[in-house]
Formats: sequence, C-alpha cells, structure tokens
Amino acid sequence: MPEQIPADSVGLIEPRQAVFEEPIDLVCGHTLPRYELVYETYGQLNSRRDNAILICHALSGHHHAAGYHSMDERKPGWWDSAIGPGKPFDTNRFFIVSSNNLGGCNGSTGPSDLNPETGRRYGPDFPFVTVKDWVTTQHRLMRHLGIDQWAAVIGGSLGGMQAIQWAIDYPDALRHCFAIAAAPRLSAQNIGFNEVARQAILSDPEFHGGHFYEHDTVPRRGLMLARMLGHITYLSDDAMRAKFGRELKQGRLGYGFDVEFQVESYLRYQGTSFVDRFDANTYLLMTKALDYFDPAAEFNDNLVAALRRAQAKFLVIAFTSDWRFSPARSGEIVQALVDARRAVTYAEVEANHGHDAFLMPITYYHEVLRAYMARIEQEGAAA
Amino acid sequence: MPEQIPADSVGLIEPRQAVFEEPIDLVCGHTLPRYELVYETYGQLNSRRDNAILICHALSGHHHAAGYHSMDERKPGWWDSAIGPGKPFDTNRFFIVSSNNLGGCNGSTGPSDLNPETGRRYGPDFPFVTVKDWVTTQHRLMRHLGIDQWAAVIGGSLGGMQAIQWAIDYPDALRHCFAIAAAPRLSAQNIGFNEVARQAILSDPEFHGGHFYEHDTVPRRGLMLARMLGHITYLSDDAMRAKFGRELKQGRLGYGFDVEFQVESYLRYQGTSFVDRFDANTYLLMTKALDYFDPAAEFNDNLVAALRRAQAKFLVIAFTSDWRFSPARSGEIVQALVDARRAVTYAEVEANHGHDAFLMPITYYHEVLRAYMARIEQEGAAA
Repeated sequence: MPEQIPADSVGLIEPRQAVFEEPIDLVCGHTLPRYELVYETYGQLNSRRDNAILICHALSGHHHAAGYHSMDERKPGWWDSAIGPGKPFDTNRFFIVSSNNLGGCNGSTGPSDLNPETGRRYGPDFPFVTVKDWVTTQHRLMRHLGIDQWAAVIGGSLGGMQAIQWAIDYPDALRHCFAIAAAPRLSAQNIGFNEVARQAILSDPEFHGGHFYEHDTVPRRGLMLARMLGHITYLSDDAMRAKFGRELKQGRLGYGFDVEFQVESYLRYQGTSFVDRFDANTYLLMTKALDYFDPAAEFNDNLVAALRRAQAKFLVIAFTSDWRFSPARSGEIVQALVDARRAVTYAEVEANHGHDAFLMPITYYHEVLRAYMARIEQEGAAA
Repeated sequence: MPEQIPADSVGLIEPRQAVFEEPIDLVCGHTLPRYELVYETYGQLNSRRDNAILICHALSGHHHAAGYHSMDERKPGWWDSAIGPGKPFDTNRFFIVSSNNLGGCNGSTGPSDLNPETGRRYGPDFPFVTVKDWVTTQHRLMRHLGIDQWAAVIGGSLGGMQAIQWAIDYPDALRHCFAIAAAPRLSAQNIGFNEVARQAILSDPEFHGGHFYEHDTVPRRGLMLARMLGHITYLSDDAMRAKFGRELKQGRLGYGFDVEFQVESYLRYQGTSFVDRFDANTYLLMTKALDYFDPAAEFNDNLVAALRRAQAKFLVIAFTSDWRFSPARSGEIVQALVDARRAVTYAEVEANHGHDAFLMPITYYHEVLRAYMARIEQEGAAA
C-alpha cells in the first residue's frame, strides 16, 4: 500500500466495463451471444485520435497494467514500471488501453461467470478461446472507444503473440507492433510444460470436471502445482541461483518434506497465493490458447506469408536468459519479417531474469522502448 | 521380447540378493538394523580381482543395467547399449556390478518393504537416504563380493554424483571415477523441479501421508505428474522438436482437453506407465537425495578441498544439449579437480538428446568410453 501515490504513477484508476451484445463466432466453432470486457485507460486520447496504444497481457495477466485501484492496494498494476508520466509508455503523450482477455477471471466474461443460457456458471462449458478471438474482441473494443487505428499494439509473452496476430488480422488498424519475449508459436517443450500444468488441474479431485464452483471448492492443489511449474519457467537458472542459491530456510537440513531450501518456500508461496486470485478453468483456457497460437497455420505453415499481410512496423525484443521463449524464437519472427520485407527493429537485451525480464525496468530495455516510442510520436506529428 | 538374445548381449541375467545384518547409521540420524541390496553382475572377476566395475543408477533406475531377465522381457537393461561383450564396458574384460540403491523399489530394502519393527510396510517411516549412505551400503556390497578395489565406479546423472561421493569417501577403493551428465550439486532450478514433483505426490489424496499401501491404492496422479515433468527435463527443446514438433495426434485441433499434440500423448504415456513400476515413496526419497547431494558441504563448501581427498582419476562427460545438468555444471567439477591437482579427462559430447544422451549409444561418447576403458585395462595389466 503506497503511503502516497508516486509522482510518476498514473494514480488511482477505475476499471471500466464494455458490454458487447453482438454475438461473436469463435474459432473453435462456438458462438457467444454476448460478452463483456473489463479495461483500463491511462492518459488522454488526443484530438486526432492517433495516440492510442493497446497493451496485451500475458498468460495470468489482466487489465490492471498501471496505477492503483485504491490507496490500500499493495502493489501497482503489472507493468507500472513502463506505463506512466515520463515512463517509456508515457501517459503524457499516449492514451493507453489495457483489457482483460475474453475467458479471463478478472472482469471480462469467462468460465466463472453465469451462462445466460443455463443460469449456472459456465465452468467447463465456456468455449475455447484463441489469440485470434481475443484480437477480434479487442477490435470491437477499439471501435467502442472511437479509435480507428492504434499507434501501437504492445505485448510481452502471450501478449506479444497477440500483438502479432493483430498485425496479421487487422493490418490497417495498427501502425506499430511490439512483440516482446514472444515466439511465432510454441515448441513441443512449451506445450509439454502446459500439458503438465493442465493435467495437474484436471486430475485434481476438487476440479469436478470444471464444475467446482457448484461444489463450493477449488482445485487448489492442481492450480498450485501449475503455478509453481510456471514460475520455474519464468525465471532463468542463473536468476534462481542469484535469488535463492541453495540457501536453507532453517539453516540446516531437516530430512523431511517441509520446506528446506528457500527456493521451495518461494515456489510454494507463489503457488498458494495464485490459487486465491486465479480461476482454474481460465488457466486451462489460457494455456490452450498459447498452444494453439500459430499464425502461420492459416497460411500453409508459412510465417513469411502470414506476416506479409501485416502493414505495421515491428519492434521485437528478446532477453538473453529467457529459456521459455528464447532469443532464437524471436529471431524466427525477425527472420520471417525480413523475408516478408517488413520493417523490423530487433533488440536482444542482456538480462539474467529469464522470461520475467519483460516486466523488469532494465535500463537498456527501457531505453529501447523510449527511443522507439519517440519515433512513433514523431511519425504521428509528421502525419 | 527378443526372438533370440543378441550376440553382444550379456544374455539372461539372474538378479542376486545380498543381506546385511549389520545395522547402518544413516546420515539423517536414523539407524536401519538390517537391509538387503539386489544386484546383478556381468562378466567374470579375474584372478587378481582387479577388473571389477561398479555401475551406479540414476533417479528412477535400478540394478538391471544389461541383458534380459527372461526371453519374455521386452527391453534389455537400461544401459545395455554400453554393457556387454565388445561394448564400451566390455564384459569379456571387466566384471561389472550393478545394484539397486537402498530405499529403492526394485528389490533393495525400501519404503514398500515390511518394517520388521512394526510388521507394517515402512511407507513414510522409511528413513531419508543420501548419496553418502548409498556409497556406504555399496562399500559393504563390495566387501561381500570379495572385492578390495573397483577398477572404476561409473554413473550417469545421480549415478555420476554417487561415483564422485565414492571417490571422496573411500579414496583407495576405486582407481577411476566416471561422472557422466552430473553436477557437483543441484541448482535452485533443479531443486525447484524436484519440489514440484514432490508436491504433486504429497498433495495427491491417494497418497494418504505415504501409507497408501494400507489403503490398497497408489497416488497415481501425483506420480504421473512427477514423471511427466521429469521427462521434459530429460529431453532437450531441440530433441522434443525433432521428436514431436507440433504434430497433432488426430491431424486437427479438437478444442478439448484430450490429447491434441503428439508431445502430450508421449508425456501421458510416460507418466501412466511409470505408475505401474515405481513406488511413490521411493520417488520422494530419491529426489531428496538429489537435493541433499553436496559433497563440498562437509568441507566448508569447498569442492576443491572435498576432491583433494580423492585418489581416483576422473573421467567427466557432458552433453551439449543437456539443460538439466549442463556442460557448465560438469565444468565446475573439472575446474575443481584441476584446482585439486587431480587427474581428469573431460569430454563434451555434441548431442541433441538432452540429459537422456548419457543412455544413448552416441558414437563419439562410446569412443571416449572405449578409449578410457582401454587405458584402465592397460594400467591393470601393467600393475
């Protein structure tokens, strides 16, 4: 809880709700008759309406990217280090929009909401959503906000993939695309980790086939395991060594299954605290959306052909110690953009934080973002 | 099941049981009044009794390293590619001993055995065992077999760590030490993966605090998850890409939680088949033994000082794509041996199989083993 809001914060923020009564046909074949998206905005839309930026969140992220919901909030939004007055995504210059993905559990319509057709919570009946569906819903949100074109669509990890899908699906709706710590599609190893996480949830007896709400319970153990595993893949081996090493919680070995090493304590804490703020059905859907993401698939597995559809200019950023979506994976995106004759800027940022680096205020990383944002602003002024 | 036993196989093998009535004081502080070790031998002990080799197994391994238990056995022992007449560990020249670690579930005394003090199965009451304890028990086995000194103690992964512990704890009981795909101790990331595996088992309602035998059940889901996760860390990202890519089991996406990608099918198979052949309590103990392994700890965290105790010559082998125990970790062992002025041969083998490479008949790898074994044989002849 901040004693007072820092001067470079966007301050107290009130999330808003957008209701869409027009049905949406999802990629999986199902139709949602109506849905809502929760979103936040920071900064002001200018009179030319050309300074709007869309932020896309990662797997377990949400719309609350910057500022505080109340003076009691312990931590600001998840990308507060980058969003605010004078920060890389400068709210004195840009109008920033951040929405929670469809299927989420933070305010947008998702599995824990009531299904109007049955009067019960959706649970496992909530349809599978894809990155493409999210882009469609965000495009409607864009219209809803009176915006014709984003100055940039920006995201890290799954959010970066979403930005790429935006550039392909709505080529003239964005001028710039930021794909940070992303990949053109998941590897077998990536899918493998997701599958272990899913099996942990699905096999938890408290999951009740996804109808756990009606049993007044949650699949705590499964969701905890999924999150613990996720955290290992978000950090680098080096970062974990620096952070925990082999430090013992009690100073000596206990020869038991209670926490012995600090890293165990950290992972258990991350796992248990996640259970209180995330929905297991949403987690399943999000991992599936990751697995399914493959924009080249619609173009005969040709990523170059897919990206040739894009009109945006690209900023691709990778982090040296990221082994979830390594620099080599960003390299695949860059190579395909070059082959598609699309404008691309690429930065490989030295960082030992692993995949999580995209959330950190690393100096060179933020300088790259600032420099690129200044370019966008100049282009806007020249137009 | 082999139609006929291959000519370069050690053939049909009968495991033997060694009973030790002398109590053993374990590192954890507990004493086992008696225990048994199951082991196999291949080849003949020579008249000088100087051609004996000890093979140490990995986390989920066992004593059955080569040959067949019966003509019905589908696959030979786990290191059959390296052990046999004319193979790198040539049974025409060496007498090879392979035992199941104490606490195991393949014939050596372990949690699924009856506790003579209670008449019930040990379950969670089986004491914690360490790599050091295994070395002590194997030293007794050595005496039991009438061997004074091993020509070599050899192991991969956890087995390689065991070989290092042998060299430190019984310096004059081995002439050579092979540490293959090993590490001087686990990193925080390694411990993190083990902890997720343990939590999967411990949190399974069928675990019953380790007393699942009495409930006539097994913690299937937990053990399955642990094994699935293990398999991801045994393979490299590249190996998984080569093996599965993003191939779909049914040729198209199903938008459901049944198997969609081949890699999911593989992991589920590995997970479910493991449950039928491995004990959950043993799995917990083995992961803890891995976490605890830290020979430097007894020497003020000084690995050089620990290795200065050793008299053996070392062969250290690492595999380029092994990210569980990477070449950098083997490099730490090599550096400490050099600093301790101990004889060391090091080979980094180009292989895309990940950690599992140590089990594969990779040409350069096997040539290195052959060359080193020829050296051992020549030294034996010269002595």
